Amino acid sequence: MKFSVEQIAEILEGEVEGEGGVLIDHFAKIEEGRAGSISFLANIKYEPYIYSTESSAVIVSREFIPKNAVKTNLIRVKDPYLSVSKLMAAYQQMKKVKKTGLSPKAEIDETAGIGMDVYIEPMVYVGEQAVIGDRVSILAGAYIGHRVKIGPNTVIHPGVKIMEDCVIGSNCVLHPGVVIGSEGFGFAPDENGVYQDIPQLGNVVLGDNVSIGANTTIDRATMGSTRIGTGVKLDNLVQIGHNVEVGENTVVASQTGISGSTKIGKNCMIAGQVGFAGHIKIADGTKIGAKSGVAKSIDEPGGVYSGHPLLPLKQYLRLMINLSKMK
Amino acid sequence: MKFSVEQIAEILEGEVEGEGGVLIDHFAKIEEGRAGSISFLANIKYEPYIYSTESSAVIVSREFIPKNAVKTNLIRVKDPYLSVSKLMAAYQQMKKVKKTGLSPKAEIDETAGIGMDVYIEPMVYVGEQAVIGDRVSILAGAYIGHRVKIGPNTVIHPGVKIMEDCVIGSNCVLHPGVVIGSEGFGFAPDENGVYQDIPQLGNVVLGDNVSIGANTTIDRATMGSTRIGTGVKLDNLVQIGHNVEVGENTVVASQTGISGSTKIGKNCMIAGQVGFAGHIKIADGTKIGAKSGVAKSIDEPGGVYSGHPLLPLKQYLRLMINLSKMK
Amino acid sequence: MKFSVEQIAEILEGEVEGEGGVLIDHFAKIEEGRAGSISFLANIKYEPYIYSTESSAVIVSREFIPKNAVKTNLIRVKDPYLSVSKLMAAYQQMKKVKKTGLSPKAEIDETAGIGMDVYIEPMVYVGEQAVIGDRVSILAGAYIGHRVKIGPNTVIHPGVKIMEDCVIGSNCVLHPGVVIGSEGFGFAPDENGVYQDIPQLGNVVLGDNVSIGANTTIDRATMGSTRIGTGVKLDNLVQIGHNVEVGENTVVASQTGISGSTKIGKNCMIAGQVGFAGHIKIADGTKIGAKSGVAKSIDEPGGVYSGHPLLPLKQYLRLMINLSKMK
Repeated sequence: MKFSVEQIAEILEGEVEGEGGVLIDHFAKIEEGRAGSISFLANIKYEPYIYSTESSAVIVSREFIPKNAVKTNLIRVKDPYLSVSKLMAAYQQMKKVKKTGLSPKAEIDETAGIGMDVYIEPMVYVGEQAVIGDRVSILAGAYIGHRVKIGPNTVIHPGVKIMEDCVIGSNCVLHPGVVIGSEGFGFAPDENGVYQDIPQLGNVVLGDNVSIGANTTIDRATMGSTRIGTGVKLDNLVQIGHNVEVGENTVVASQTGISGSTKIGKNCMIAGQVGFAGHIKIADGTKIGAKSGVAKSIDEPGGVYSGHPLLPLKQYLRLMINLSKMK
Repeated sequence: MKFSVEQIAEILEGEVEGEGGVLIDHFAKIEEGRAGSISFLANIKYEPYIYSTESSAVIVSREFIPKNAVKTNLIRVKDPYLSVSKLMAAYQQMKKVKKTGLSPKAEIDETAGIGMDVYIEPMVYVGEQAVIGDRVSILAGAYIGHRVKIGPNTVIHPGVKIMEDCVIGSNCVLHPGVVIGSEGFGFAPDENGVYQDIPQLGNVVLGDNVSIGANTTIDRATMGSTRIGTGVKLDNLVQIGHNVEVGENTVVASQTGISGSTKIGKNCMIAGQVGFAGHIKIADGTKIGAKSGVAKSIDEPGGVYSGHPLLPLKQYLRLMINLSKMK
Repeated sequence: MKFSVEQIAEILEGEVEGEGGVLIDHFAKIEEGRAGSISFLANIKYEPYIYSTESSAVIVSREFIPKNAVKTNLIRVKDPYLSVSKLMAAYQQMKKVKKTGLSPKAEIDETAGIGMDVYIEPMVYVGEQAVIGDRVSILAGAYIGHRVKIGPNTVIHPGVKIMEDCVIGSNCVLHPGVVIGSEGFGFAPDENGVYQDIPQLGNVVLGDNVSIGANTTIDRATMGSTRIGTGVKLDNLVQIGHNVEVGENTVVASQTGISGSTKIGKNCMIAGQVGFAGHIKIADGTKIGAKSGVAKSIDEPGGVYSGHPLLPLKQYLRLMINLSKMK
């Protein structure tokens, strides 16, 4: 499958700078491109490569002003990262053959409800009264517990475990090894300091278009639901405690942990290895830097914070400089 | 199944304040309750809800003094959190139908010893000479290695991997994705800086009533045993290195890591994202705050510490305030 | 199987101090040894045990000068840790019976290429056109995606997931629950703050002699390859982002995270719970202390750093002392 630079520019509503007739047949990183490659430049760190790249075309911002001569052909767009993402998605869509059918080597309970055009691989377990939506794919070795509901078009990767009574929205992707609905860390010490289990009777509810990274764990609520809003993206090895709520379109990077009953607002950006105390509330649009420790609620929306103790970004950066200079 | 407020108070050895005859049929969070709900108030942050809750009854402490009028019925007990936990456990017990039987789609080696009333789901692997105690449940996709021993009443969740020669006590719960007995991180660089594997010939031994959180990993000992004491509770995504020992009734929150050969005492409370250096000893009853870095042994029992560098709690809190004020 | 102290010394090119004729039949930790045990002393913390150990022999450094009387027999070698590792490997080799054969309960696609003397357990999935090298072992419940290539002698532990198109070298060990080739955390916000998936079209390439710890996750590249060099050792619960490169013979301890497109040099030593920002470069031979935050590139090879902010080791240690003393 080949496309001309001109055709691609048209798809992306961009403008060609150079030869529109050159043919493209694959994607490549700007530093690894060769004839036939299309690359992109979004992060300014990679600018030096645009002057030496062998790629046949590079997608750049309309604002980009080259400092040196550029040999390659440019496609200028509003947002290069978003554009290349759309282009790759279109390419992936064309290549993908949607598989359907239920493997006879899967163990699907006869009381489970299976939608249209569902694909279930071998060694999958689907429990009693589970409901699997139309066009869902469940790959080998996944575990779908009793009474779990999965919305249409969702993809469940190998080795995912969804425990009983949890609800997964439509168009979600659960990456390999994800655990949804494990029993949270609820123990009450008795008079002898011996911990008694607190039964976890609630569930986990995921909205639509949610992506959960590999080996991430989300505990079920003690009562009620742990809730992950529509459009939320969690990275790998994230921990979500019982009764946590994460608002719509919030993104959480790898190895971050959110303790029980904490509520994160909408459109937040949480970096990696952050820790949140339990029972706090974080306002919409909050941004938190990597490795931060968040001990208290944040009431004002849209703030940017970092550190442990958590400080407004400017103050944090000043503190980092001060600590670096301490004699 | 319905119970009166009076009946529940009797079970909990509590006193009713309000109407004892009101009927209860489910649990709910205090802020989500409605007619028929029973809720509890343990964390004082949630006090405002007791004045507005629609729950038919709320379990509170005997010491609780309302600041405003309370519409709901109260059940006063010594420890609300422990009481609700007992109540939920009793409820869960009544509801649960204990399943037994070995799936023909499990792969159980003929030399394995299987106890009475064991439940094994499809796609489970049980290796040579493994010994499975009475009333153990092993859910789909779990892996039980050669010569593993599992004590009575233990529950092994989907996708748990227990590697060869490890020993699991009775009444344990291993949550989904747990790895027990992986080969630890033992490598010795040779003269060329190339790492040679150090074989890990030991095992992991879990006591009774141990709970291991989802996707937590516990490495086998190089020689001897990595030991997790009776009553220990590990949260999700915890890392336990080779030859570590964790004393009885110690709790460890999510994403904490304990390096090789470190010994944690009994009745310790370790918060989340803490890191322990290797080859150190932590005294009984020690409490460590979230995100701390523990580089040295702690000899005195019962201390409370936090931070990185690790400091006694008071000093740590003062340091946090000082850092927040630094210009 | 018994060996004399003399025989063992010969294998290790060491010198006996004591009785060479004493027989050895197992390994034990120096503090747990008894008659017939061989132990080693590498970490000076354990020196006190050498004066009281019941082990029949202890491997020590040629430089070791006892402070008190030693009852046990010594084998003096250049590097005790490396020597015991060689000895244990030889012992393990003698004991191990190499299994071969393909379980009829595995699901192996007919287009997959399977080498000589391969061992595949039940409930393993091998996808289309996968290529499995000679003498590879794949344990129960592992998932090998379409077109995955695995080099000779590699061991794939239970529940490992290797996603499509990834390449694994020879003599690698992938511990239980590892995920290779998950789709990285790539999302571009559109004009409404809704995140659009960026397709991840690349793969993961592992060199030879690589060891990946339990439940560690390695994301595939957006374009091109995420690369883990020959001889690299990753511990448990490590996160490797998309397009990361880790150089040869680098070791990374547990719960460390490396963000997208970062390049780590050769022969680096990275401690546990470290976080690396994305798009940075770390020079060969760099050592990073536990819990550090690495925000910028490190250009000079062989440096030792720690902390957050990251500082040269000496400066970091001074800062830790200063913070501990702050009033």
